[in-house]
Amino acid sequence: MTRGFYIGRFQPYHQGHHRVIADIAEEVDELVVGIGSADQSHSVRNPFTGGERIMMITKALADLDLVTYAVPLEDINRNAVWVSHVRSMSPNFDVAYSNNPLVVRLFEEAGIEVRGSPMFDREVLRGTEIRERMVAGDDWSDLVPDAVEHVVSEVDGIERIRQVSDTDVEATPND
Amino acid sequence: MTRGFYIGRFQPYHQGHHRVIADIAEEVDELVVGIGSADQSHSVRNPFTGGERIMMITKALADLDLVTYAVPLEDINRNAVWVSHVRSMSPNFDVAYSNNPLVVRLFEEAGIEVRGSPMFDREVLRGTEIRERMVAGDDWSDLVPDAVEHVVSEVDGIERIRQVSDTDVEATPND
Amino acid sequence: MTRGFYIGRFQPYHQGHHRVIADIAEEVDELVVGIGSADQSHSVRNPFTGGERIMMITKALADLDLVTYAVPLEDINRNAVWVSHVRSMSPNFDVAYSNNPLVVRLFEEAGIEVRGSPMFDREVLRGTEIRERMVAGDDWSDLVPDAVEHVVSEVDGIERIRQVSDTDVEATPND
Amino acid sequence: MTRGFYIGRFQPYHQGHHRVIADIAEEVDELVVGIGSADQSHSVRNPFTGGERIMMITKALADLDLVTYAVPLEDINRNAVWVSHVRSMSPNFDVAYSNNPLVVRLFEEAGIEVRGSPMFDREVLRGTEIRERMVAGDDWSDLVPDAVEHVVSEVDGIERIRQVSDTDVEATPND
Amino acid sequence: MTRGFYIGRFQPYHQGHHRVIADIAEEVDELVVGIGSADQSHSVRNPFTGGERIMMITKALADLDLVTYAVPLEDINRNAVWVSHVRSMSPNFDVAYSNNPLVVRLFEEAGIEVRGSPMFDREVLRGTEIRERMVAGDDWSDLVPDAVEHVVSEVDGIERIRQVSDTDVEATPND
Amino acid sequence: MTRGFYIGRFQPYHQGHHRVIADIAEEVDELVVGIGSADQSHSVRNPFTGGERIMMITKALADLDLVTYAVPLEDINRNAVWVSHVRSMSPNFDVAYSNNPLVVRLFEEAGIEVRGSPMFDREVLRGTEIRERMVAGDDWSDLVPDAVEHVVSEVDGIERIRQVSDTDVEATPND
Repeated sequence: MTRGFYIGRFQPYHQGHHRVIADIAEEVDELVVGIGSADQSHSVRNPFTGGERIMMITKALADLDLVTYAVPLEDINRNAVWVSHVRSMSPNFDVAYSNNPLVVRLFEEAGIEVRGSPMFDREVLRGTEIRERMVAGDDWSDLVPDAVEHVVSEVDGIERIRQVSDTDVEATPND
Repeated sequence: MTRGFYIGRFQPYHQGHHRVIADIAEEVDELVVGIGSADQSHSVRNPFTGGERIMMITKALADLDLVTYAVPLEDINRNAVWVSHVRSMSPNFDVAYSNNPLVVRLFEEAGIEVRGSPMFDREVLRGTEIRERMVAGDDWSDLVPDAVEHVVSEVDGIERIRQVSDTDVEATPND
Repeated sequence: MTRGFYIGRFQPYHQGHHRVIADIAEEVDELVVGIGSADQSHSVRNPFTGGERIMMITKALADLDLVTYAVPLEDINRNAVWVSHVRSMSPNFDVAYSNNPLVVRLFEEAGIEVRGSPMFDREVLRGTEIRERMVAGDDWSDLVPDAVEHVVSEVDGIERIRQVSDTDVEATPND
Repeated sequence: MTRGFYIGRFQPYHQGHHRVIADIAEEVDELVVGIGSADQSHSVRNPFTGGERIMMITKALADLDLVTYAVPLEDINRNAVWVSHVRSMSPNFDVAYSNNPLVVRLFEEAGIEVRGSPMFDREVLRGTEIRERMVAGDDWSDLVPDAVEHVVSEVDGIERIRQVSDTDVEATPND
Repeated sequence: MTRGFYIGRFQPYHQGHHRVIADIAEEVDELVVGIGSADQSHSVRNPFTGGERIMMITKALADLDLVTYAVPLEDINRNAVWVSHVRSMSPNFDVAYSNNPLVVRLFEEAGIEVRGSPMFDREVLRGTEIRERMVAGDDWSDLVPDAVEHVVSEVDGIERIRQVSDTDVEATPND
Repeated sequence: MTRGFYIGRFQPYHQGHHRVIADIAEEVDELVVGIGSADQSHSVRNPFTGGERIMMITKALADLDLVTYAVPLEDINRNAVWVSHVRSMSPNFDVAYSNNPLVVRLFEEAGIEVRGSPMFDREVLRGTEIRERMVAGDDWSDLVPDAVEHVVSEVDGIERIRQVSDTDVEATPND
């Protein structure tokens, strides 16, 4: 039995993530999907809550023949302890999938095997692109699984991201 | 569609929790299982990590005909914001199940419906009792689902709780 | 112009505090009332929120001929920086009033003048005594200013403290 | 009886804020003035401490026929729990005043009524403009109430903001 | 070249620690002395600041023929990340010395070699015993190296611990 | 006896710092070297851990005729309490050395004497310059003491900074 680990912020979970996971599914029996910055929400960069992202991922992966765990991870802001933070919040895993050089480095220094997770159609299938379309009123729904579109609608996500996008990007509620 | 929320520390997940959830399953279509103090581990009171408890719960609930989400929740230590912490980390839910008077009060002040979740055989089916048996070398495995026994064994849980039980209960690594 | 500083948790603000402040009013022109553990609430030891305690103090002091500032102070849990935490959150003050030996020591090490603030009728006029009466259903309202009784009633405080008192004192929402 | 809530960082409190509050005073009996980022100080963006801002606001509002509460709010950096943080630290309020889209959204998701609070002469009556004048040695005192000018002088504020402005904006004491 | 790691709270550093380190010196070329709960001070259990304890240890070890590093470690309150916290704040080490079962367990789970560090005359050479003598006015100076007695005197330590001992042990500055 | 305090991030410790300390050594008997942002590592701006920087400084200063203490300081992100944070983690000092206007201001407001610490050859002897050379593969070793070069090599520092430099500067492990 092999268990993999794959991390992202999933703002939102999109077809790019979905295809990567479909590929990973060829290599592992179970997969932990770590939801980074789970404590961040209601900003242009992080519009959806950790709980909303659990919904997106769990629903989108329901038809895949793979046991998956969607695990929200609060930011810890200390790279040197990040790996043990992840490991303590996640079911044990044998291999981590990532293309993020920092993640690769941190896992490698901790002695964990890391494999690349090449993204598809990286120009379009990016969280930034999708969030910009949401704000601009352009079409974005083709870029995400149906389950994600459903969650975004249920939580009034388009209106939320548009409204907070009027605020300065760095703004806090006090500005 | 109704989604419920049920919280505990699950140190470990045992037959008492399992029967409560079987009952809740009669009333809801989906259930979020919130894992409290998910950031605590390696103590007599909280021997297992958040990730280990995700495993216990997910595996134990696999055969139940109920969509479940096991959601680790770090301690926030401020009762007045606890409900919004929970809500932001969890898929939306319609009703919370709890017998803990503090939890009931906090959810009620936030306008969330709460239903009781009566425990079975409360004298024996308690985390404290099970952890004491683990430390003492008494039999505990009948009190938990098979999947939990398997996880405890896989993470060398009995040896861990025995070893840390030699330390003062309040001890930190510096004592 | 002299400004004083007086700290407490004020769970709740009672006649003992009120008389101390009446005495302090003889010596200062303005008084900062620091509300300690302002982030704690909904427990037997700290039933009322920081905001509710601001209300109690401001309303109770309204008829005193003294400019007062009710300042909530979140716990910082590091004695060595506590004084600068207090000073940064408070209008400048010339003298601190306290009988708490730790507070006295911390202010003195920081070079701030401290004066004693003798309590009246310490057996009865104590937060613990009042909270116990609230839980037990005994009479407590004579022990607090009318304004406080009004706030407690407005926030359904008696029912809250009774309900959470059923929980173990040390309990967190996860127990 | 109606109580309103109005939030800002008030670095410093200026005539723009003052006129907004004068307008709000027409609609409410009491007003809570929430001081955001109360834990930040000694930077160009946040030169004044929470306590210094309490002074500015309390003194400036003294002659208004309105019961006001100046409440310092430490940053919590989690939008999803920000509203309950504010509510727990503030006397209860019926309506929030804000033009900040993020604040509006957060209060609305929490079911709280929000009203606009249009600023006057927004080009000049802005914290940024006033702080730039302070650093540059230009005249700024006409833009703030007299009480604020007095507090700035008392805490040696002009010298402080000039001195820290020599440091890189993003600098921490370690750079 | 072998570097060892030895942790304690050192409240205060005493002859028991000193003899353990003298023994460790036989086995290693360099030793990191980790000062736990370095952020705690001014309480009966933790009277001395992190900086005061650095002084005690550095001065007391000056005459030992051993390169030593006194490293203050703030509490992190999450056992699962404690080892990586320690490792990131400490020069690399090959072996850890400890008799604390929790520390032993945490290091072992992280794959670090641990050796026992038997204390001498454990009945008397204990921090608790020494602190009780300090409070009671009994003789304690024979139990610590001269350098430690000097630091305690310089920081007015006896008066400090006596004064804070009048406060309830669990007290915070707000009580 | 005079003890000085000198702070920096020391990413890495270089000849510029070394010459400043050589000059300070003329004026003091002992020197505390405070390592700022000690909890930050594995980024382009902060590549080395607190422990690695303790090594660099201790080894580089070994041949200086000056008692030195290398003290890691975690970020506290509140300027108003920063001085007491530093003082509680450091042996007592009589004078602080700094050219950072914010540090100068904070120490002065706390009543601590500050002296300037003019850097040599500031164009080249800067952390930023050295880190850029490390990433670019240019020569950097002449700019640091031999002991630092040795530590960088031992911890595979060049490969680490290059690898993480491929990540967006602001990136967290979740991006």
